[in-house]
Amino acid sequence: MAALDYESINENVKKAQYAVRGELYLRASELQKEGKKIIFTNVGNPHALGQKPLTFPRQVVALCQAPFLLDDPNVGLIFPADAIARAKYYLGLTSGGLGAYSDSRGLPGIRKEVAEFIEKRDGYPSDPELIYLTDGASKGVMQILQTIIRGQGDGILVPVPQYPLYSAAITLFGGSLVPYYLEETANWGLDIQNLRESVAESRARGITVRAMVIINPGNPTGQCLSVANLKEILKFCNQEKLVLLGDEVYQQNVYQDERPFISARKVLMDMGPPISKEVQLVSFHTVSKGYWGECGQRGGYLEMTNIPPQTVDEIYKVASISLSPNVPGQIFMGVMVNPPKPGDISYDRFARESKGILGSLRKRAQIMTDGFNSCRNVVCNFTEGAMYSFPQVRLPPKAIEAAKKAGKVPDVFYCLRLLEATGISTVPGSGFGQKDGVFHLRTTILPAEEDMPAIMSSFKKFNDEFMEQYEDNRGYSRM
Amino acid sequence: MAALDYESINENVKKAQYAVRGELYLRASELQKEGKKIIFTNVGNPHALGQKPLTFPRQVVALCQAPFLLDDPNVGLIFPADAIARAKYYLGLTSGGLGAYSDSRGLPGIRKEVAEFIEKRDGYPSDPELIYLTDGASKGVMQILQTIIRGQGDGILVPVPQYPLYSAAITLFGGSLVPYYLEETANWGLDIQNLRESVAESRARGITVRAMVIINPGNPTGQCLSVANLKEILKFCNQEKLVLLGDEVYQQNVYQDERPFISARKVLMDMGPPISKEVQLVSFHTVSKGYWGECGQRGGYLEMTNIPPQTVDEIYKVASISLSPNVPGQIFMGVMVNPPKPGDISYDRFARESKGILGSLRKRAQIMTDGFNSCRNVVCNFTEGAMYSFPQVRLPPKAIEAAKKAGKVPDVFYCLRLLEATGISTVPGSGFGQKDGVFHLRTTILPAEEDMPAIMSSFKKFNDEFMEQYEDNRGYSRM
Repeated sequence: MAALDYESINENVKKAQYAVRGELYLRASELQKEGKKIIFTNVGNPHALGQKPLTFPRQVVALCQAPFLLDDPNVGLIFPADAIARAKYYLGLTSGGLGAYSDSRGLPGIRKEVAEFIEKRDGYPSDPELIYLTDGASKGVMQILQTIIRGQGDGILVPVPQYPLYSAAITLFGGSLVPYYLEETANWGLDIQNLRESVAESRARGITVRAMVIINPGNPTGQCLSVANLKEILKFCNQEKLVLLGDEVYQQNVYQDERPFISARKVLMDMGPPISKEVQLVSFHTVSKGYWGECGQRGGYLEMTNIPPQTVDEIYKVASISLSPNVPGQIFMGVMVNPPKPGDISYDRFARESKGILGSLRKRAQIMTDGFNSCRNVVCNFTEGAMYSFPQVRLPPKAIEAAKKAGKVPDVFYCLRLLEATGISTVPGSGFGQKDGVFHLRTTILPAEEDMPAIMSSFKKFNDEFMEQYEDNRGYSRM
Repeated sequence: MAALDYESINENVKKAQYAVRGELYLRASELQKEGKKIIFTNVGNPHALGQKPLTFPRQVVALCQAPFLLDDPNVGLIFPADAIARAKYYLGLTSGGLGAYSDSRGLPGIRKEVAEFIEKRDGYPSDPELIYLTDGASKGVMQILQTIIRGQGDGILVPVPQYPLYSAAITLFGGSLVPYYLEETANWGLDIQNLRESVAESRARGITVRAMVIINPGNPTGQCLSVANLKEILKFCNQEKLVLLGDEVYQQNVYQDERPFISARKVLMDMGPPISKEVQLVSFHTVSKGYWGECGQRGGYLEMTNIPPQTVDEIYKVASISLSPNVPGQIFMGVMVNPPKPGDISYDRFARESKGILGSLRKRAQIMTDGFNSCRNVVCNFTEGAMYSFPQVRLPPKAIEAAKKAGKVPDVFYCLRLLEATGISTVPGSGFGQKDGVFHLRTTILPAEEDMPAIMSSFKKFNDEFMEQYEDNRGYSRM
């Protein structure tokens, strides 16, 4: 048997699951090929659903890609002066422009911009030497998990429902996922008691929990963590000597005012010593989300707090095997953390574009939540932040039976039917994890605002017909 | 102890070594910070040493980054019509431009361009469904090694000297590197008998060899493999049921006419069935090398031959965890495999630029080889291809003793002294592997042609002084 025969490849590769691009996505791609109109709400990919890129960063990166334009006498006709100045600034940070590998941690000048952004956001200084630029946040998460995981005895606490990057990466690296359940009836809040139980249970199974993941704002669940919650988490990590991985990629995506985003790092620093000097924290950010949505550019960073220098060096060494993160993505990160300021030529346009996107996302979050809640067998917490709705769909026993007959998990069955009927491509809740016997789906809030009412009524129509088909005692349950 | 304390992190992370950005590079970076002029010849990074990017691909990508320019009435003043047309073509392949994640295998339209390029190069059809775009070739190599390696019992045959991506990735994934030695006195040729012995020896140690790596043209050794050699390798892989990993990133970098680059895939297809339908082959390519040198863009592809569909799907699934390769890098790959053609507006310029770069590299390869060979204690095979010289430096016993006292491997000691004296940042041969008791260094042939004579005489001067200091019986050995 040859080494790449299916039977003989790495079992961890086979076991890893990534539902966001799993069965539903593959079926949607097939249908699209056959000519069906598909609404890809399976993945947070704003530009694919029509969101326009912000103009200023694109101008800067275009000029960096084509530095000969900077000498062209006509360049001022089509690029504003501040974009030209910024492109020159970034090119000056490189040795050889976008075509040269940078330092494997990213360009020092951009890591400095990131540190200044963090300092301004949190009110505490940040060290550029502890900030590594990455090809998107996922790459950073994988680097850190690979550094932590030594084998099956190493457990990583992951919220359930979770973004399946975590389950997939933990499986790939041969570790053990230790779930902690978010409480749907408490707006996807986190219960520290539940955390303690998870750790104790896994210890009994011979698993040492070594790190804990939080996703704030939540994916797929959309909640924003409160300061009180973050404090409890940090204390817990300190007691248990856990590394906290703070997935904060949706920090710009907040759609209510009661619970603004607060970084785990700020809360930790606010708590003061000794804890602020003890908890090992790695935080992740990206250019793919926010009002940027520059997913295809693959720009991100990780920031390390209280990580010993020797380990920081090891992470550098492993990063260097991949040579360097892509340099255009680094420039996007620089502009994201250091956008045009009031008084700059491009400021008004930048502010108008970014406010337009965020304001519309806030409206879409509301339309979607309301739409789901208008179906009698669906309940959905409001999307406080991030880019997703994660409604619970109550499936009648006959539907569950039908799914079983079709050899499908019930929510996969429901989502496939939804896809075939409406072209809406979602991800079944089972791809994120959920409690036994309850079923969800995840959809992004990213379809264009003007399309949203039609999409929600198309969903409602499908759901009504689905229920009509599978519900017992129709007359009764409609009362 | 916390999970990211040095003592408790993944041992494979600690063990992995990547000398190209190791001790020498770190010391060079320090010296640069202190104001010393450093010539970074440690890594094949052409733009960092002054190579200008090709104009046409940069125009295309700049327009794709700033699609609003396509509606600007002034765009024709600064971009040629064929670059505009090509940018529109690529944007038409995406749904949402460069800011949207693509399919995790890359944009189908660009994979088709790659397949056409391969078909034209080899004379055999290529299937776009078996071509995956990657963030540089390194990412692709790592994906495949991760799929193959299940544990320490799995061995990968790697040429020694080798490019340390392979040793590092094999260590990270917990496999075993099985070396096969290239024969320096036979112009770094490969001896099949030596291969068989390596496999037999590792079998005796309980290691099953599952794959074999070839680097053609060679890195760091610069040789081009002959058709006869490639046939022997393919037969050997067939007998032993090994996956062949063909690192062909330097296929455009060939500096002699006797042994042009021939792909492993073409040789395999030429051999006909049954072998052409049996050997599992994965080939890698990149936009970082050739006359492109677009390292910072991180664009690459892998092509799979004779890999079963189920495994192809698993590799797709793992790629999907990282969402998608960066999209600008995919566009570079598209332009690389489908450059301007005679008659196109940009053709003359493109041809002039690319020929200029290749012609100069050929001259530089010669100057460097001659320069090394003019030192009495240095012998260097001619760089037939790739981007490196890999001279053997004969070190006198007193130098080896001095290195030992300093706690350094002898060639590290030599290269550090070279760096301090001249600013030339090389990589010691021990970073690539070499036979016991012989010492090498690797340098790129990338410094500007006009700087080359001064660099080589600076090297010669240092080497003479080093020998003067450490050689016994001075009068005698100078005779």
